[in-house]
Amino acid sequence: MSFVVTPQSMQFAGPLGLRSGASISNYSLAFETYGELNADRSNAVLVCHALNASHHVAGVYAGQEKSDGWWDNMIGPGKPVDTDRFFVIGINNLGSCFGSTGPMHLNPETGRAYGADFPVVTVEDWVNAQAGLLDALGIRTLAAVMGGSLGGMQALSWTLQYPERVRHAVVIASAPSLTAQNIAFNEVARRAIVTDPDFHGGHFYEHSVIPQRGLRIARMIGHITYQSDDVMNEKFGRALRHAVEGTSGRQDFLYSTQEVEFQIESYLRYNGDKFSEYFDANTYLLITRALDYFDPAQAHGGDLRAALAKVTAKFLIVSFSTDWRFSPARSREIVKGLLDNRRNVSYAEIDAPHGHDAFLLDDVRYMSLVRSYFDRIAASEVTP
Amino acid sequence: MSFVVTPQSMQFAGPLGLRSGASISNYSLAFETYGELNADRSNAVLVCHALNASHHVAGVYAGQEKSDGWWDNMIGPGKPVDTDRFFVIGINNLGSCFGSTGPMHLNPETGRAYGADFPVVTVEDWVNAQAGLLDALGIRTLAAVMGGSLGGMQALSWTLQYPERVRHAVVIASAPSLTAQNIAFNEVARRAIVTDPDFHGGHFYEHSVIPQRGLRIARMIGHITYQSDDVMNEKFGRALRHAVEGTSGRQDFLYSTQEVEFQIESYLRYNGDKFSEYFDANTYLLITRALDYFDPAQAHGGDLRAALAKVTAKFLIVSFSTDWRFSPARSREIVKGLLDNRRNVSYAEIDAPHGHDAFLLDDVRYMSLVRSYFDRIAASEVTP
Repeated sequence: MSFVVTPQSMQFAGPLGLRSGASISNYSLAFETYGELNADRSNAVLVCHALNASHHVAGVYAGQEKSDGWWDNMIGPGKPVDTDRFFVIGINNLGSCFGSTGPMHLNPETGRAYGADFPVVTVEDWVNAQAGLLDALGIRTLAAVMGGSLGGMQALSWTLQYPERVRHAVVIASAPSLTAQNIAFNEVARRAIVTDPDFHGGHFYEHSVIPQRGLRIARMIGHITYQSDDVMNEKFGRALRHAVEGTSGRQDFLYSTQEVEFQIESYLRYNGDKFSEYFDANTYLLITRALDYFDPAQAHGGDLRAALAKVTAKFLIVSFSTDWRFSPARSREIVKGLLDNRRNVSYAEIDAPHGHDAFLLDDVRYMSLVRSYFDRIAASEVTP
Repeated sequence: MSFVVTPQSMQFAGPLGLRSGASISNYSLAFETYGELNADRSNAVLVCHALNASHHVAGVYAGQEKSDGWWDNMIGPGKPVDTDRFFVIGINNLGSCFGSTGPMHLNPETGRAYGADFPVVTVEDWVNAQAGLLDALGIRTLAAVMGGSLGGMQALSWTLQYPERVRHAVVIASAPSLTAQNIAFNEVARRAIVTDPDFHGGHFYEHSVIPQRGLRIARMIGHITYQSDDVMNEKFGRALRHAVEGTSGRQDFLYSTQEVEFQIESYLRYNGDKFSEYFDANTYLLITRALDYFDPAQAHGGDLRAALAKVTAKFLIVSFSTDWRFSPARSREIVKGLLDNRRNVSYAEIDAPHGHDAFLLDDVRYMSLVRSYFDRIAASEVTP
């Protein structure tokens, strides 16, 4: 049982200018904090979330079973990011469906839910909104900003947008941009959602339906890309769901194209169903698009080294050997870009079997690594 | 311009017993032949097709532009599989939508199209049907059976089901079974089709609609897995479809979640649209299920060596370094199973950038390899 936390919310008048040229006013950001801000405000750590996550990073909600935060194994009293020493902030991004202003909320301009009219937000926009929350909390400088996957992109973007406000960036299982294949998977998921008749051009709320078919497909694709081929084989292999006795006494198939035949099918369907019941379709479109767009090298003709010239933070970059969604090679691109600028960067490629999902899982070497990095920050840069 | 061919069809009274226990009667098989069968009938080569292909392996149809067979670069006069020396047979599998009896045809038992009631067919069933066609053509023994991907599975299965009828098997970019990840991708594609409201439980023909949404998604997923990450990056990278001038004079985004933004999205949508106009949804379900089911080691407790003990054919096995759908490691499993049985096997792993699709593409080393293998067969085992 972890510690009990209470989510908070802060209202902003705005307008917050967005990268697209649009802006958003009167928005709120959901967040949580763990630990205590010290007197000189030098111990704040901001945690940025990935696609399917929120401000609920650590702890549990009172009276709610299985309500552990998504990085509860990483963050808390005595954990690698030790909340006895750090003041950790989890924040929910704009456009999410978990508390901050998003497509399900009322668009003050139309009097109906934003739906597909919610402005397209980027990693850079999220970072600007996060900076606004830090301002409101009276935090000028972060001891560290950290995140995995899309969260790692936000951490990296912080060091470019607000170099003077970040002392350390911890970028895990991330990439400096998506590859064509990454974008392709996102696009298939989006098409599945958008072409679901229940999507209604993104204004399905008014029709009291959800594009569940599309969301299920999107999640199933996601799940495949989060795991390594090896770990899927180990967990599911070719095991059958409902083994029936064949005439020869051995396991035989059902011989059906629509029934669940293999365990892996059952697993995917279960996860697709569950996801489609709680995740908002418009949020899915927005977050995958933010992933597609992120590419700090773009403004420098594709030269990541040039893009990273303004960085002053120190970096810990971690990748996982079997992550084929954001492969170690992509992390090494960031490492190289930083080293070419003579920046301080520690890099570890963890030999883990779990694919992209590894960044959320317990792995002794991974956890020790993050622990010792934060120990070092606490010892050298944080006033006790 | 290639040579002109005419598709043929042969009717079978049946019944053909299927692995599921069901059977099919009064079916027809579409096929094509290239070259001449020699006097002692020793020069026949059977070509088995993969998911999205047919009996139209080589040549063109009279008066039809761009009607080249799917392996026209491999098979024809003077080509690696030289039809001046070999009598090559292309056959369309049962359940296909390209000519042989399939879900779109009339089910004699109900008087309406089979639709989703078409019996579930397996690789083994296809091979049995193919053997029936060879019987009808008066061909007892094949100089070679060959195929790529799912076609390679059929070639392998020939050597197990009819060891005495196959002298050589050429198994390209294939696997002894699908991995959990392979099955997972198939399952997502099937769910996209089956949950499309226009699928109507597989009897959409009667409703004069096609589950195009689902077929598009299925094809988009397929396309991603047929190509390597590298070749996608080289062909499309992060290039934008409609570059617009941003305020700073450089390319900027459209900032839309539904419009085509990147070239890769445009490519996927185009291929999804095209596919959904000509490929039958029920056929897609059947063929992906045949892939899922193939696993000759299953009846031997997962022991591929034991399964391959009955093989007498000689093998050429080819894999491609960047094929992540059917990786070289899967081909090496077959090689090992054959070597453990002291069978004659040649294996080549071609260093090609194109992923799984490489088996259909021109590559000098790949083509020379197949050419020299067939030259050797022609020189030593075929009566001129």
